[in-house]
Amino acid sequence: MANVLLPLAKGFEELEAVALCDVMRRGGIDVRLAYLEDEVQKELVLGANGITIKADISIHHVITDDFDMMVLPGGWGGTYALAENARVQELLREFKEKKVVGAMCAAPFALKKAGVLGAKYTAYPGAVEEIDHPGYMADQKVVEDGNVMTSQGPGTAVCFGLAIVRRLVGEETMQQVKEGMLLSYC
Amino acid sequence: MANVLLPLAKGFEELEAVALCDVMRRGGIDVRLAYLEDEVQKELVLGANGITIKADISIHHVITDDFDMMVLPGGWGGTYALAENARVQELLREFKEKKVVGAMCAAPFALKKAGVLGAKYTAYPGAVEEIDHPGYMADQKVVEDGNVMTSQGPGTAVCFGLAIVRRLVGEETMQQVKEGMLLSYC
Repeated sequence: MANVLLPLAKGFEELEAVALCDVMRRGGIDVRLAYLEDEVQKELVLGANGITIKADISIHHVITDDFDMMVLPGGWGGTYALAENARVQELLREFKEKKVVGAMCAAPFALKKAGVLGAKYTAYPGAVEEIDHPGYMADQKVVEDGNVMTSQGPGTAVCFGLAIVRRLVGEETMQQVKEGMLLSYC
Repeated sequence: MANVLLPLAKGFEELEAVALCDVMRRGGIDVRLAYLEDEVQKELVLGANGITIKADISIHHVITDDFDMMVLPGGWGGTYALAENARVQELLREFKEKKVVGAMCAAPFALKKAGVLGAKYTAYPGAVEEIDHPGYMADQKVVEDGNVMTSQGPGTAVCFGLAIVRRLVGEETMQQVKEGMLLSYC
């Protein structure tokens, strides 16, 4: 079974995090939602639109070897927190070295900060200036550049999830999830 | 400001609930997530794919006059709970009488149970047999039949949210949310 680490930091974009988690779990991936331990309520993490989601584990209790990928949802609040968290930044570098890293919407900013953003990527159009990195591909819902995967924003989160299922599980499972969730537009 | 009540029952489909809430809140709607009080952890409600979301208020503390609409996310576990909950069923009848009711995926089953499903509706294709109601429209992402709104499933949840924003807030705001969230496929 494939394993994916999905950190939630205060101000994360809820639809992006939940779409990624939902699609990946339907594809048979063991997804762990991680909290950063600087939240007031620890594992209860408040998103950008006032939705609170319960995370599964502390980011300080995970090791890279237990996972195949680490993927970041967007939302500027969460993105800045991920960019400033030393443990997250360290993990991003380890995942880039040994596994797969991913980020969407504003969160490629956190990849850039860790020095792991690739030569080609996508992101939320309004975040590109602040990410300030060459290789932005405006017309792609999802970009796979070696072991760095990126996606655009809320409307592409489900498609990003499917691309991860295809990569970590396989085409057939991805197609089943796509049909089951009515995602013909991906 | 428009107000929408969104009940979460154990086994709800997380992407549907969060997509609806996220889109509506971005459209300026005050969305209240309600719990049914039969959850083990009360306001912490576990979804169909293992994601726990914190609800805002108890369903027993809401009154119809405070809201413009009540909308149900899908997922069979949550749908059966909503169909069997006396307070939810009573509220559905009150909202159909005085306000707007909505449901998506499997949840039109709960509307049928309350006797408020209209002459035309849509739902998750695999749920239609169990809903067992005439007027199913297979090719529509969202159906508006008077004050009953319905939608198909996970992949159409964002589009359903936009249709609610258009109805309760207006076309201009809906277009802004649609563009901001990259929902060109809706």
